[in-house]
Amino acid sequence: VIDALLEVEAALAAAQAQLGHIPVEHAQAIAQACSAGVELDEEAARTSTPVVALVAALREAVGEEAAASVHLGATSQDIMDTAAMLTVRERRGPILEDLVGAANTAADLARAHRSTPMAGRTLLQRATPITFGSKAALWTAALDDAGRGVARLALPVQLGGPVGTLADTDLLAAFADRLDLDAPPLSWHTARAPVARIAAALGIAAGVAGKVATDVILMAQTEVGEACEEGGEGYGGSSTMPHKHNPIAAISARAAARRAPALVATVMASMEQEHERAAGAWQAEGPALRDLLSVTGEACDRLRESLERLVVDPERMAANLGEEEPDVSDAEALVDRALDGRR
Amino acid sequence: VIDALLEVEAALAAAQAQLGHIPVEHAQAIAQACSAGVELDEEAARTSTPVVALVAALREAVGEEAAASVHLGATSQDIMDTAAMLTVRERRGPILEDLVGAANTAADLARAHRSTPMAGRTLLQRATPITFGSKAALWTAALDDAGRGVARLALPVQLGGPVGTLADTDLLAAFADRLDLDAPPLSWHTARAPVARIAAALGIAAGVAGKVATDVILMAQTEVGEACEEGGEGYGGSSTMPHKHNPIAAISARAAARRAPALVATVMASMEQEHERAAGAWQAEGPALRDLLSVTGEACDRLRESLERLVVDPERMAANLGEEEPDVSDAEALVDRALDGRR
Amino acid sequence: VIDALLEVEAALAAAQAQLGHIPVEHAQAIAQACSAGVELDEEAARTSTPVVALVAALREAVGEEAAASVHLGATSQDIMDTAAMLTVRERRGPILEDLVGAANTAADLARAHRSTPMAGRTLLQRATPITFGSKAALWTAALDDAGRGVARLALPVQLGGPVGTLADTDLLAAFADRLDLDAPPLSWHTARAPVARIAAALGIAAGVAGKVATDVILMAQTEVGEACEEGGEGYGGSSTMPHKHNPIAAISARAAARRAPALVATVMASMEQEHERAAGAWQAEGPALRDLLSVTGEACDRLRESLERLVVDPERMAANLGEEEPDVSDAEALVDRALDGRR
Amino acid sequence: VIDALLEVEAALAAAQAQLGHIPVEHAQAIAQACSAGVELDEEAARTSTPVVALVAALREAVGEEAAASVHLGATSQDIMDTAAMLTVRERRGPILEDLVGAANTAADLARAHRSTPMAGRTLLQRATPITFGSKAALWTAALDDAGRGVARLALPVQLGGPVGTLADTDLLAAFADRLDLDAPPLSWHTARAPVARIAAALGIAAGVAGKVATDVILMAQTEVGEACEEGGEGYGGSSTMPHKHNPIAAISARAAARRAPALVATVMASMEQEHERAAGAWQAEGPALRDLLSVTGEACDRLRESLERLVVDPERMAANLGEEEPDVSDAEALVDRALDGRR
Repeated sequence: VIDALLEVEAALAAAQAQLGHIPVEHAQAIAQACSAGVELDEEAARTSTPVVALVAALREAVGEEAAASVHLGATSQDIMDTAAMLTVRERRGPILEDLVGAANTAADLARAHRSTPMAGRTLLQRATPITFGSKAALWTAALDDAGRGVARLALPVQLGGPVGTLADTDLLAAFADRLDLDAPPLSWHTARAPVARIAAALGIAAGVAGKVATDVILMAQTEVGEACEEGGEGYGGSSTMPHKHNPIAAISARAAARRAPALVATVMASMEQEHERAAGAWQAEGPALRDLLSVTGEACDRLRESLERLVVDPERMAANLGEEEPDVSDAEALVDRALDGRR
Repeated sequence: VIDALLEVEAALAAAQAQLGHIPVEHAQAIAQACSAGVELDEEAARTSTPVVALVAALREAVGEEAAASVHLGATSQDIMDTAAMLTVRERRGPILEDLVGAANTAADLARAHRSTPMAGRTLLQRATPITFGSKAALWTAALDDAGRGVARLALPVQLGGPVGTLADTDLLAAFADRLDLDAPPLSWHTARAPVARIAAALGIAAGVAGKVATDVILMAQTEVGEACEEGGEGYGGSSTMPHKHNPIAAISARAAARRAPALVATVMASMEQEHERAAGAWQAEGPALRDLLSVTGEACDRLRESLERLVVDPERMAANLGEEEPDVSDAEALVDRALDGRR
Repeated sequence: VIDALLEVEAALAAAQAQLGHIPVEHAQAIAQACSAGVELDEEAARTSTPVVALVAALREAVGEEAAASVHLGATSQDIMDTAAMLTVRERRGPILEDLVGAANTAADLARAHRSTPMAGRTLLQRATPITFGSKAALWTAALDDAGRGVARLALPVQLGGPVGTLADTDLLAAFADRLDLDAPPLSWHTARAPVARIAAALGIAAGVAGKVATDVILMAQTEVGEACEEGGEGYGGSSTMPHKHNPIAAISARAAARRAPALVATVMASMEQEHERAAGAWQAEGPALRDLLSVTGEACDRLRESLERLVVDPERMAANLGEEEPDVSDAEALVDRALDGRR
Repeated sequence: VIDALLEVEAALAAAQAQLGHIPVEHAQAIAQACSAGVELDEEAARTSTPVVALVAALREAVGEEAAASVHLGATSQDIMDTAAMLTVRERRGPILEDLVGAANTAADLARAHRSTPMAGRTLLQRATPITFGSKAALWTAALDDAGRGVARLALPVQLGGPVGTLADTDLLAAFADRLDLDAPPLSWHTARAPVARIAAALGIAAGVAGKVATDVILMAQTEVGEACEEGGEGYGGSSTMPHKHNPIAAISARAAARRAPALVATVMASMEQEHERAAGAWQAEGPALRDLLSVTGEACDRLRESLERLVVDPERMAANLGEEEPDVSDAEALVDRALDGRR
C-alpha cells in the first residue's frame, strides 16, 4: 500500500515538473526518495491518514528546498484514491488472466464435447437433452463477458485538492498519463460511481465463477458422477474418509464467490458520502474494495484450476440421460455459435 | 405482471407468424386473447409458475386449432425473463426522468450560485472555500452519469426453450424487435450478468441520490441552516413540534437509497444458478429486482422533489464560511467545466 | 398499518386515563374514534409522517374537549415504533405456527424413519451412512431452535416523547400492559438493538428453512430420487415438460430464504441513527423489517407445506447407499436423543 | 489458526483419555506434539482442508503407536468448528473490554453532565432540550446491552464425526470442559444458528459503536462544535490543512462499523448448507466471521478511544440550544434511572 502511495506522489511531481509547475530537479529528488521508500510510524495510521506521515517523511528525505514541491496542491484523498486505482489495476491483472484461462479451458471442453449428450437439468430435475459442449460453451461466453466487464472499467486518477475543486486539465492528463490511468472529467471525491462500478464488475465476475463452480460441484455429486477434478494422491481427500475425492477447487471457488455480493453492497452503501469528504463512508469503502478484489481473485483462480483439472465421463452422462440417440442439434448449433462469437 | 406476460406471449406468436412458423390467424387469435386478458387461479402460483396456468388459459381462449401455436417452443422462464425486462424498461422511464429532472434542477442551482461562496467541508469539518455552484455542479454530473448508466443498459429478451439451447437467430431478432428489447447473443437462462448489471446501475443511481440527499439534509441542519425544502403549511411538520421544518423529501430519498445496496447483493448472490434452471436463486432474483426498482424509483423521485423545493441561504453560507472575499476561482471554473460538459 | 397506529393511540389514552393523566371519558372517545378508523390523505405521507395527519384526524373526530388528550406527550416515532412491534407480534404468529408445524412433521418423519439407512453426504459426495430419521431429527431440532429464538424476542413499546427522555415508568408499564408488549428499561429511539435482534432471529429462522428446503431439493434430484413433494395433477408441473414433477414448495421456501440475509443487513446498517431521531436510517429500517417478516413468513410457510407433502423412498435410499446392513446405531441414538429433547 | 486447531486436537485426546477411550500416554504424546507445533505444507490448504495435513503431521510426530489415537472419531469440520469457537472466545475478550470501557467512560460523562443542557435533535433539526448526560446515559445503556449480547453467546464445541451423528454425551462434556466451551445438545454441522447468533451479536455491537461514533462526529462538526477528540500535536491533522482537527477515532469506528452488516449477511446466507457438510457455504462462513470479528473489534476499540479523548463544550451546547433555563428534569431523571440500572 505504501509503495502505491509513493508511486502516486512521484508521478504527481513528475507531471508537475513536466508542466513547469515545479523544478525538474525537485521531481527527480522526489522520485528518488519515493524509490528509496519511507518508514512510517505505526501510530500515524491511528492519529491521521498515512499520507500525512508519508508526506512529512518525504519532505524530510528530499531536503528543505524540494520539500515545498512534495504533494503540491494535492490532498490525502487524492493520493489514496489514485493509489487505490493502481491497486485495482494490479490486482485485476491475474483476475483477467484467470477469467481468460478458465474461458479458454471451457472453450476446449465445448469443442471436445460439442456432441456429447447429457441431461439438461432444470430445478435440479432431469429435462430435455443438451450436450456437455453446450453447457461448457455457455460457461465460456459468461466468463468472457465477465472478463470484458472487468477489462473495460475506467480507472480514474484523483486530483481535486482539499475540497475537490482543483481542475487543471493539463495536469490531470499528465498525471493520468504517467500512471497509465484515466483522466476523469471532474473530481470524484464524493461521487463514487467509478468505485461502485469496479465493485459491480468484480461482483459479476465472482458471480459467474460461482455459477460455473456450482455446475462442476453438482456434476461431481456421487449420484451424478459426470465429472471430477483430477489430482494427485491426497487431492480432495478427507481426514476420515481417505477414499473420498472432493472437487476442492470448485468448492473453494464457490465459497469465495459467495463472499462477494455483501462486499459489493458495502461499497455501494459507501456512496453516501458527506459534503467534500465523507466521515466514515470513504474510509469503509477502501477495505471493502480490497476484500472484494481478494475474494474475486480467489474465485477466478480456483475456478480456473477446477476447469483445468476437470475430467468428464461421457458414458455416465449418457446413462444419466437415458435416451437413445437424442436429438442434440440445437445444442451443437449453440456450441458453434458461441465459439464463433469468440473469435 | 400478468399483463407483461401476455404481452410477451403475443409478441412471440407475432414473431413466429412473421417468420412463417405459425399461421398468421393463430397469432391474431393469440394477440386478441392476450389483449382480453386472462383470469388466473390463485392456486396456480403455489403449485407451479404462473406461466403454466396462463398458457393453459390462453390455449382455452384461442380455441383448439390455434392452441398448439401458443407458447410454441418457449419455456416459462423465457416468458418470465422477457416480461421482467419489459418491467425494467417501464419502470426505468420515471427513474430516468427523475434523474434528468434532478440533474437539470441541480444545474440551474449551479448556474445561479456559480460564485456563491460557502465552506467546503471534509470529515464534516470546515475546510477551504467552495461555491454552492460547484457543489451543485458535482451533483449534476453525478446524476447525469448515473442516468447514463441506467439508460444504456442492455435489456435482452430470453428465448432459449426448455434448457436454453434454442437459438433461432431470426426468431430472436423478430421477437426482440416487436418488444423493442435487445436480442442477446446467447441464452442467459443461468448466466445472469444482464440482470446483475441492471441491479448495479440501479444501485449506483440510488447511491448518487443518497449522496445528494445527504448533502441537503446536512445543509438543512439547524446549526448549518444553509438550505431548506420549501413547502406549504404543514410541510415537514412534526406531531409534537409544529414549528419544526424537516427536509422530508431528502430524508425519504436517503431512506429509500439505503435499502438499495442489500438488494443489489441479493441479485448478485442469485447469479449462482444450477445447471439449466436454478432451484431457488432465479426465483429469489425476480422479487429482489422489483424491490430494487421500487426503492431506486422512490429515491430518485424524492430527490428530484427535494431539489425542486430547495431554497438556499447565501448569507448563512457566507457567515458559516467566515472569510472575507475568499478566492473561489477554482470552484467557478469547475462549474463552467461541468456545465459545458453537459451540452 | 393505520389500524396498528390507531390501536397504539387508543392504548396510550387508556393507560393515561388509568393513571389519571387524562379523563376517562377522553380515553373512551379516543378509543371510539380509533375503532371507527380515520381516512388519511395520500399527500400526508409525502409531506410528513402519517402520524401527524392521523393525530389531526383523531383530534377532529373526538371533539374539541378531548382533542388535547389525543397523543398526549407522545411523538410520532413512539406511535410508529410501538405499532411496528404490534406488527411483528401479529406476523410472527403464523411464522411460529409454521415453524412448529414443520418441526412436528419433521419429528414424525424422524420417528418413522429412525432406522431407515441412507447415505450421509459431505461436500455432496457420499460419506458414511446415516438414517433419514437422523437427518429429519436434526431438521426438527434446528426448526425448534429457530422458533424459540423468534418466540422469546422482546417486543418493547416506545414512549420516549419528542427526544426520547420521557420516562414515566408507571405509564410505560400500563401502556405495555394494554398492548401485551414489553416495557423497555429506557427509550430505544436511536438505540435499535431490539429491532436488530428481531431481524437476526427472523434471518436465522429463514436460514434454517432454507437449509431444510435445500436438503429436500437435493433429495428430490432426479439422480438421487429419495424424496418428492406429493401433489395433485399439475403439481410442480412445467409449461414444456408436463411429466416433470418439481419440488415447488421447497424451491419457493429456499427462494424466500435467500432474500432474508440482505434485509437483515439493511436493518443492522440502520442502527447508525443520528442524535435523537435519525434522518434516513430509521425510515429505512421499517420497510426492511416488514419485507423481512414477509420473506421469513413465506419461507416458513412453504417449508411446512413441503414437509407435509414429502414422500420418501427408502428403497432408493438403500440403493444410493449401496451398503448391506450398515451400522446406523449412532444415527438411531441421535434420533432418540433429539426427540427426547423435544418433550 | 493452526495453534487453535492443535489446541482442539490435544483437548480431544485428553478428553478421550479421561474417559478411557485412549491410553493416557497417547494423550500426553499428542499434547506434547501439539505444544511443539507442526509445519504445514502450503499446498495442503489448496488440495484439501488444513486438518488433513495437520493430522498427518501429528501422527508422524507422536509415533506409530499413538498415531491411531490422534483425531479419533473426529472429522475435519469438528476440529475447525471448535477451533473457530476458540477464536471467537479469544477475540471477543478485547471486544467486551472495549465495550465495557466505552460504557464506563460514557457513564462518567453522563454523571458529569447530568444537568448540562443541550439541544435534542431529531432529523438533524433542533428539537426540545435534553442534557448531554442523558445522551451519554443512553450511549452507556446501549453499549452495556450490546456487551451483554456478546458475553452471553453460546460457544459450542463440535464433535459429530464424519456425518454429524456422533453423540457421546460424556465425551462431548469432557471435550467442552477442557476447552471451556459449551457442550451442544446435538451436532451443528449444518445447523449453523450458533454461528449466525454470534454474527448477529457482533453486528449489533458494531451497530451500537457506529451510532455513538456518529453522534460524536456530528457534535464535532464545525458548526455544532460541542465536542472534540483531544489529542497531541498532529492528532486528527490533514495533509493540506494542518489547522484542522478531525475526530479520527470516531470516524474510524464508524467506518469499521459500516463494514459489519454485510458480513452478518454473508454469515446468515451461509446457513444454507447441503446435507451433512456444505459444498461452499461452510467454507464461506469462516472467513466472513473472522472479518466480522475484526471490524467489530476495530469499531469498539476506536469508539472507546474516541470517548476517552472526548472533551465537550457546555457553553457551546447552551449557545446552540438558545434557551434560558430549559426544563431538563426528564433528562436528569433518565440519567439517574440509566445509571441506577447499571449497578
